[in-house]
Amino acid sequence: MKIYFSMRLTVAVAVGIMLGTIAYAQQKPCATASKFGADDQIGNLNYITAEKTLAASKLVTTGKAYRLAIETNKDVPAFPPRTFSIVVLQPGQVAGGTLGATKTTYNDDIITGWVGVGTGIDGLGHVGIDNLYFNCNKAADFVAANGLKKLGVENIPAVATRAVLLDMAGYLNTDIVKEGTAFNRAEIEGAMKRQGIKSIEKGDVVLFYTGWLKLIGKDNKRYEDGNPGLGIEGAKYLASLGVAIAGADNENLEVVPFEKGAGVFEVHQILLAQNGIYIIENLNLAEMVKDKAWESFFTLGTPRVTGGVQAIVNPIAIR
Amino acid sequence: MKIYFSMRLTVAVAVGIMLGTIAYAQQKPCATASKFGADDQIGNLNYITAEKTLAASKLVTTGKAYRLAIETNKDVPAFPPRTFSIVVLQPGQVAGGTLGATKTTYNDDIITGWVGVGTGIDGLGHVGIDNLYFNCNKAADFVAANGLKKLGVENIPAVATRAVLLDMAGYLNTDIVKEGTAFNRAEIEGAMKRQGIKSIEKGDVVLFYTGWLKLIGKDNKRYEDGNPGLGIEGAKYLASLGVAIAGADNENLEVVPFEKGAGVFEVHQILLAQNGIYIIENLNLAEMVKDKAWESFFTLGTPRVTGGVQAIVNPIAIR
Amino acid sequence: MKIYFSMRLTVAVAVGIMLGTIAYAQQKPCATASKFGADDQIGNLNYITAEKTLAASKLVTTGKAYRLAIETNKDVPAFPPRTFSIVVLQPGQVAGGTLGATKTTYNDDIITGWVGVGTGIDGLGHVGIDNLYFNCNKAADFVAANGLKKLGVENIPAVATRAVLLDMAGYLNTDIVKEGTAFNRAEIEGAMKRQGIKSIEKGDVVLFYTGWLKLIGKDNKRYEDGNPGLGIEGAKYLASLGVAIAGADNENLEVVPFEKGAGVFEVHQILLAQNGIYIIENLNLAEMVKDKAWESFFTLGTPRVTGGVQAIVNPIAIR
Amino acid sequence: MKIYFSMRLTVAVAVGIMLGTIAYAQQKPCATASKFGADDQIGNLNYITAEKTLAASKLVTTGKAYRLAIETNKDVPAFPPRTFSIVVLQPGQVAGGTLGATKTTYNDDIITGWVGVGTGIDGLGHVGIDNLYFNCNKAADFVAANGLKKLGVENIPAVATRAVLLDMAGYLNTDIVKEGTAFNRAEIEGAMKRQGIKSIEKGDVVLFYTGWLKLIGKDNKRYEDGNPGLGIEGAKYLASLGVAIAGADNENLEVVPFEKGAGVFEVHQILLAQNGIYIIENLNLAEMVKDKAWESFFTLGTPRVTGGVQAIVNPIAIR
Repeated sequence: MKIYFSMRLTVAVAVGIMLGTIAYAQQKPCATASKFGADDQIGNLNYITAEKTLAASKLVTTGKAYRLAIETNKDVPAFPPRTFSIVVLQPGQVAGGTLGATKTTYNDDIITGWVGVGTGIDGLGHVGIDNLYFNCNKAADFVAANGLKKLGVENIPAVATRAVLLDMAGYLNTDIVKEGTAFNRAEIEGAMKRQGIKSIEKGDVVLFYTGWLKLIGKDNKRYEDGNPGLGIEGAKYLASLGVAIAGADNENLEVVPFEKGAGVFEVHQILLAQNGIYIIENLNLAEMVKDKAWESFFTLGTPRVTGGVQAIVNPIAIR
Repeated sequence: MKIYFSMRLTVAVAVGIMLGTIAYAQQKPCATASKFGADDQIGNLNYITAEKTLAASKLVTTGKAYRLAIETNKDVPAFPPRTFSIVVLQPGQVAGGTLGATKTTYNDDIITGWVGVGTGIDGLGHVGIDNLYFNCNKAADFVAANGLKKLGVENIPAVATRAVLLDMAGYLNTDIVKEGTAFNRAEIEGAMKRQGIKSIEKGDVVLFYTGWLKLIGKDNKRYEDGNPGLGIEGAKYLASLGVAIAGADNENLEVVPFEKGAGVFEVHQILLAQNGIYIIENLNLAEMVKDKAWESFFTLGTPRVTGGVQAIVNPIAIR
Repeated sequence: MKIYFSMRLTVAVAVGIMLGTIAYAQQKPCATASKFGADDQIGNLNYITAEKTLAASKLVTTGKAYRLAIETNKDVPAFPPRTFSIVVLQPGQVAGGTLGATKTTYNDDIITGWVGVGTGIDGLGHVGIDNLYFNCNKAADFVAANGLKKLGVENIPAVATRAVLLDMAGYLNTDIVKEGTAFNRAEIEGAMKRQGIKSIEKGDVVLFYTGWLKLIGKDNKRYEDGNPGLGIEGAKYLASLGVAIAGADNENLEVVPFEKGAGVFEVHQILLAQNGIYIIENLNLAEMVKDKAWESFFTLGTPRVTGGVQAIVNPIAIR
Repeated sequence: MKIYFSMRLTVAVAVGIMLGTIAYAQQKPCATASKFGADDQIGNLNYITAEKTLAASKLVTTGKAYRLAIETNKDVPAFPPRTFSIVVLQPGQVAGGTLGATKTTYNDDIITGWVGVGTGIDGLGHVGIDNLYFNCNKAADFVAANGLKKLGVENIPAVATRAVLLDMAGYLNTDIVKEGTAFNRAEIEGAMKRQGIKSIEKGDVVLFYTGWLKLIGKDNKRYEDGNPGLGIEGAKYLASLGVAIAGADNENLEVVPFEKGAGVFEVHQILLAQNGIYIIENLNLAEMVKDKAWESFFTLGTPRVTGGVQAIVNPIAIR
């Protein structure tokens, strides 16, 4: 089966290169068909095998663990009209009441919010092409008002793999990379070379550091209005390498304003819908860059809200 | 400083054993003072040093990663009156509208729910003793209706440490351990011995498998009404060992009905308030038990909702 | 202007009768054009003039006021996937705290729910025909994820007019009218005759009593699965009379299962989209029927949530 | 019984005047006992009898109906930390889907918000004295995290009574009455005299116009920070007259900053807890003042959210 997949992939990629995306799509059950079969709901996370995890775990050499999430709250800039709120209350304790002989007291909390606020993963049901989502799933078939019937984030497996961090600010010799700066194959390979990273491999997580997070609290409007990020050719390049997740320290990962001739969030379409590659946004990568933690062991446990499109997450990178 | 802490701990523990909790409390700034100083907000997670993480990472020998969360949704049994709901919608796409030349479509989601539904971590601001919470924090000083001002889950660092899994069902030679069965020092050491686990150490995560999760969907009422779990002496024992997190495959971790003479959720008070030990509930540990994954590399990235009391999480164990 | 409208209406109705709806639509700017001009957002509520209100107020002869709403909560049957929840909390009063010298304490509440739970009014932006809503408003132009830009319930004026109550259970000589029973012109006129109601007039509210509300708490499934109600011909008849609001003591007002050959919620389309007639559902009309309060002074103040599609209401009828 | 109540009231009022509130409280089952018996949950709304309603209906002389609510949304100033949001969505219509032969489309809406945003009524469970609420209800007995068990707004009957509008801006010869200006007996009687209002009677609604609403959108901070309003003596005076509801065109009705020596929201305590008088805030009274609609027929249908502390309302005044 493994060989079958490898061969099938080799052929598919070759065909894709020769005939282009449209022709390629005609070879597949649909334009967003998964390489991993008709039942697949997790795309390139399939590349993260036990072997891959085991190998990645060897990247832990100092034991330093990085918390990659920023905070989620009502003030963090978020894609409109997203909002977020939390309420803390003390059920059953009005009037200073306590429970039992040891006078137990407790707080509980309720959150109400658009999921895409703060550090979040985009599930494969987030972005589609004319209502066709990953692996030939048509919106009318799986999208319900009370949760996705397929492609929900509850399907995301335990992620433990290699992360490659690309310091695009360092590569471009700047503090904060300018909005609209597209990262394509040349920039990706340039940054890799500068940092001594030899390859990006199947099942890897690729993280882009742009310095953009520094704007939060200082210029939220600019943070929201655009960002440097992955370009269309770059997205296709990462897809050709079999990347499992792409992430960045800004809100879109994808370059905004979009490249000339690009569609609206076309990079999202390429990654999520066409290639089953997850996206993580608003990551705090600053300390990793400071430590030159270019390669690390990356783990992600996604809260399993049934039918969720996205999830608020906090990946851990360890080196 | 390290030596100072060790000595201080040794003395404190000795005093505690001699004089009991009340007398011990009189030695400290308050009954819930942290061993890690007046500014501490993360309790025993302080024990998870880089050395600890590095050592734990060596437990990865096969690369198999376990997703320990169950799903969070409106149907999963939850402590009353907790509820949960999700809404999926398509902003800006009414009437079949798509965005731009590549016809982008997308789903967004909004969650509204009590945080303690599904697999969740209890932060140190969750349970107190007569409104005194961990590290001398009085409710009136840090609890606000729109979020905790201290002890919120946003403070939880990246967790990457050793997990010890105790198969209590195996130890008690049963499929599902009966509700009200307390795990104290004898049971903990008995299970360890049976499984060949030599020690529980500072900064460890201790996970109790009871088979209780099998009831979900079959007998939700029984799932809710009680469970086997940690007893008071057992909680104090784990605290004496410096455990960072205690977790279980049921809703309370703590034995319910409570032990004779015990307070209401007194184990929660001992762990969270008195010792700065976090609690994770509703964990799916079945596959780990099947694989006898008694020791593993445990990573946890807690979604950083500012001021959150608890968090919906999905820890990853790797061996 | 008034004469102009009258003439225009007379002509329009005549044309409508002769040529049918499709032909009629061709006479108008669009199939849902308002009789009250291009800027109109309130449809037949325009008929409720001060003269109408003054005349209706004379119907108050005993001073008995009827509360027509049922309760809204998580248990009341509601159209799927609608849910509702409330949280009560005491901001700033943890640990038994009170405010100031007079020891003030207070409760606050937060609601989270689909608006269409309990007694509710459907605004004119609720139901459309292929995304064309009342008065030529296309969904793409006025529907946003964070609220309607037009036709929102905040536009609903103070309603004080005449209500006519039709006792359909009495007319059909039954306790609870069977689901699927359609009320068309014959039934409406039959009930009027039986009750001695001489006419239904412009700006009136017409309320249908079916006994259906008796099912709540006894057979919620049956309550949800269908109900007796207004048929297509009956809806067109009410529209021809210039009714402002139609209401019923069940969830749909409209007969469900739909009449043979009818579209899905076609009566809603006829009333809301084509004729600017509001709908109120889940009304408690039992006491009015008991008192034979066939004609009354009806007042409705709709909570003005900006951009709201529907609203939870509690109309008052007085006789 | 009626005579009994009258006598009891006469005695009680006399005692109250002679001995003051504390002594008076000692005569009653508790300091907040209702005049209407131990089971009473609606306080002075009991004064609104059919006779009262019938008499009030005669105030309708022109048929002009006033919508007294302002809008409720995320931008309207609200008492911290209150927030409000609405979501509009189209269940089952992804990808431009329509329902059935007549191509039905529809919008639904979900609201999430603190109830006290916009025009709202305070129920009798809103404010208490050291956790004692109206009619001897102790918080610990009736306040639950998922709704009040007593005194909830679902108990509020149909309100149809006389409203008296006091133009305090006119009385004080100003456009916007200054914050901190207290309305006590002298001011109330002064305004009545100026407007030719002979009396305030049992079961009346008293509405205070201050011009304060003009600040919304212009100076929200000032709107929030205080307002002119009812003073302690004025509140007691209204209570002595048997007023059922007191309302104003600002956020607190009560004067803020509080009068010298006054408690925190003591007027709320006097009205809600001690006297069973409801409060309506953020009313739009401008047009009534312009029309000199000093006396009117006031109707209020409160949305019946079970266990609700407050409700978003839209009273209707008709003259």
